[in-house]
Amino acid sequence: MRSLILPALLLATPLHAQLLSPEDLERADELRTLAQESALAWELLEDLTVEVGPRMAGSAGDARGVAWGEARFKALGFDRVALEPVTFPAWRRGAERATLVGPYGLDLAVTALGGSVGTPEAGITAPLVRFATLADLDAAPDGSLEGRIAYIGNRMARASDGSGYGPAVQARARGASIAAQKGASALVIRSIGTDDNRTPHTGVMSYIPGYARIPAAAISNPDADVIDGLFDRGSIPRLTLALDVGPAGEYTSHNVIGEIRGSERPEEIVLIGCHLDSWDLGMGVLDDGAGCAVTMAAAKLIREHAGAPSRTIRVVLFANEEQGLWGARAYRDAHLDDLDHHIIGAESDFGAGRIYRFSTRFAPEAFGLADQFARALAPLGIVRGDNNAFGGADISPMRAAGMAVATLHQDGTHYFDYHHTSNDTLDKVDRENLAQNVAAWTVFTWLAAQAPGDFGKGLGEAAAAN
Amino acid sequence: MRSLILPALLLATPLHAQLLSPEDLERADELRTLAQESALAWELLEDLTVEVGPRMAGSAGDARGVAWGEARFKALGFDRVALEPVTFPAWRRGAERATLVGPYGLDLAVTALGGSVGTPEAGITAPLVRFATLADLDAAPDGSLEGRIAYIGNRMARASDGSGYGPAVQARARGASIAAQKGASALVIRSIGTDDNRTPHTGVMSYIPGYARIPAAAISNPDADVIDGLFDRGSIPRLTLALDVGPAGEYTSHNVIGEIRGSERPEEIVLIGCHLDSWDLGMGVLDDGAGCAVTMAAAKLIREHAGAPSRTIRVVLFANEEQGLWGARAYRDAHLDDLDHHIIGAESDFGAGRIYRFSTRFAPEAFGLADQFARALAPLGIVRGDNNAFGGADISPMRAAGMAVATLHQDGTHYFDYHHTSNDTLDKVDRENLAQNVAAWTVFTWLAAQAPGDFGKGLGEAAAAN
Repeated sequence: MRSLILPALLLATPLHAQLLSPEDLERADELRTLAQESALAWELLEDLTVEVGPRMAGSAGDARGVAWGEARFKALGFDRVALEPVTFPAWRRGAERATLVGPYGLDLAVTALGGSVGTPEAGITAPLVRFATLADLDAAPDGSLEGRIAYIGNRMARASDGSGYGPAVQARARGASIAAQKGASALVIRSIGTDDNRTPHTGVMSYIPGYARIPAAAISNPDADVIDGLFDRGSIPRLTLALDVGPAGEYTSHNVIGEIRGSERPEEIVLIGCHLDSWDLGMGVLDDGAGCAVTMAAAKLIREHAGAPSRTIRVVLFANEEQGLWGARAYRDAHLDDLDHHIIGAESDFGAGRIYRFSTRFAPEAFGLADQFARALAPLGIVRGDNNAFGGADISPMRAAGMAVATLHQDGTHYFDYHHTSNDTLDKVDRENLAQNVAAWTVFTWLAAQAPGDFGKGLGEAAAAN
Repeated sequence: MRSLILPALLLATPLHAQLLSPEDLERADELRTLAQESALAWELLEDLTVEVGPRMAGSAGDARGVAWGEARFKALGFDRVALEPVTFPAWRRGAERATLVGPYGLDLAVTALGGSVGTPEAGITAPLVRFATLADLDAAPDGSLEGRIAYIGNRMARASDGSGYGPAVQARARGASIAAQKGASALVIRSIGTDDNRTPHTGVMSYIPGYARIPAAAISNPDADVIDGLFDRGSIPRLTLALDVGPAGEYTSHNVIGEIRGSERPEEIVLIGCHLDSWDLGMGVLDDGAGCAVTMAAAKLIREHAGAPSRTIRVVLFANEEQGLWGARAYRDAHLDDLDHHIIGAESDFGAGRIYRFSTRFAPEAFGLADQFARALAPLGIVRGDNNAFGGADISPMRAAGMAVATLHQDGTHYFDYHHTSNDTLDKVDRENLAQNVAAWTVFTWLAAQAPGDFGKGLGEAAAAN
């Protein structure tokens, strides 16, 4: 065991001179090889699927998930396992139906957007008015949609980095209030997804204060094709939309925390994790069971094969990411006093595709460390990215508070085929790719826990302007 | 116009000497090129999807489909358009639900098998007993499944020729009666399909007379994975199965017939077609709207670009294939007196994949014609098959009665991903492949209508023994 005085000595030397030791780098190589051969993440993910299933925030599955996380951290021998409360307004989904009632009868594959209010029991029946994009809807005159249902047909573009999501998702996030402003009685959108399955994509929406709250739902891409086909021929589709959904009171879930205690700098935290909640339609495997399995496995493999790291590795399974980063914000608020001790953070929340790039948001003085990280990740086919890392949605409150972050970018070519649908199930995961993820996270987490000095602070705001 | 005496002269020459004329073969080449550039089949298929939608036998969509077929044949200028009645017992599908109630609650993606009886309104709740295959279920002792739901987990194998279907589908077709014999209160099977979507596959089942009639349903492949995962860990899944389905009285639909009248041998029929009914879950595009669009377009293109053929080309959109070849049997029964005039038949009913092989069931004297057909199809990438053609399900009653048949084999690698699911929608069709189908059917149909002599008779029984 090294002397506890070492960190103080290191901090006294200039930041740019602080690099990882050859021993730590060699250990990273060993861990990388071991992790690629480990089935632990797969076993955890399969276990989560078969024993827990969907974990929508506030549902019975949420509680099952928290109990699962706590029990698994303990079974894996984490040094400290803790639950931290997260309170939020719950939302429930009952029966949902969208029926084309003209020009002929056809049941559409539909799902309410998370947070939507419901319709009257008999539903809302009205003609659709089509808009290609949210901007087009926004350009419609106020009051022009009285007695109509607004329909936004924009289709998300496929891209390996998921860059098609941002532009398309605005229709889901803000469309209902814009439609209400124009007088519409409901909003229906083409699913924000890249697939052609009859599996509509849910996802959170929110109401802009001061606007009427109208129901909002997504239909699957093939159903949207039918609607578009009717419009293209000059038909005016009429829809009955019946959604038995809505607010369901206040609920308290938990962030589930598992720690590998640091031996030399135990008060310094390397924060990794995922979100444990999912949407209700699927099994929450890609979003984000995989992230939980990967980061839990990485920490466990370090503990098992390398012993106690220098810093503390804290794995957080965040509660209720999907409905507005409730777990992440609760975590930040609960740790305001020791946010300074959060040295670096990163979340795995983009499915189970291979990691192909490593990016950072470090102070320039720590670029030498970033180079070392990148070299240790290179044998996994991972290239060096820029210094503009996002870090992950659940990491963002801490990033905004100044924490350095990194991103292990995954191939998301097919992520949005399944994202927020009933189709988010275990068969979509390639075991070899999952093991590659574990290897990368093991290397990253180990090196972050061993690195002398830190990665900089207060980079959040500059980054946002980047 | 050629002399009407020509066919009689040709019939007087030995069969083996009868070959297609260079002019007819040259015209086949022209038609092949024209058909590949035609968008007609795509337009018909899109129209059927957007204007009609699902067409389950006995449903409102059935009647819409018949009206559509009749109107389109007329609009395309077919010489004769006729409806022939087809009466059958209808079946209806209402709400359906399968909920895993132990070890935890999980709604499964489920659909009743066509023809199944319903459950009591509250459903049937019982533990599952797993069998790998129908044979394993069949080997269970009588009465051993009292108070249980039988579950058959066999997974269909993917193959370009769909050869995985036959072995796997027995669980669907006959499983309920075998399960009832063992005392089970219901049957649940893994979907007969090659996909990993949460889109369960329906399809017809039947009860063996003398056995109790128990409800039968299919769960999607990912759901079956969960059930199998629980069994693999030693859990006994408990299920509530609630199916509001069942018999719905007698219904009369119609075979829709469109004819291009022959100029020289009008009484001789080249029978091509498809089935117009579909299952209710999807749009019936691959099964079998594509077959209708392709054969309608082929006949229309011949009439438009080659004028009246020698023989009559009869396109039949058969009613209710899915629930037991009701349309095909009604057609045979309505045409018992002129079955001899049905010179050759073929159906398109395997989706919209490229045609890669041409097989026949001809008398040896007509192999020279088959060679000519094959040479005219070869530029489309179609190879010569054997002389053991099936001809298509709706053709089989006429084949059994002695009609010569041919099969234009399609690539079905992905056909069973979508077959009988909600996912059978237009986006699954590649326009270029569809045009290749039209080209092949145009060539085949044209040559069949022009060929001197016939292709043999009474080959059905010999074939069945092949």
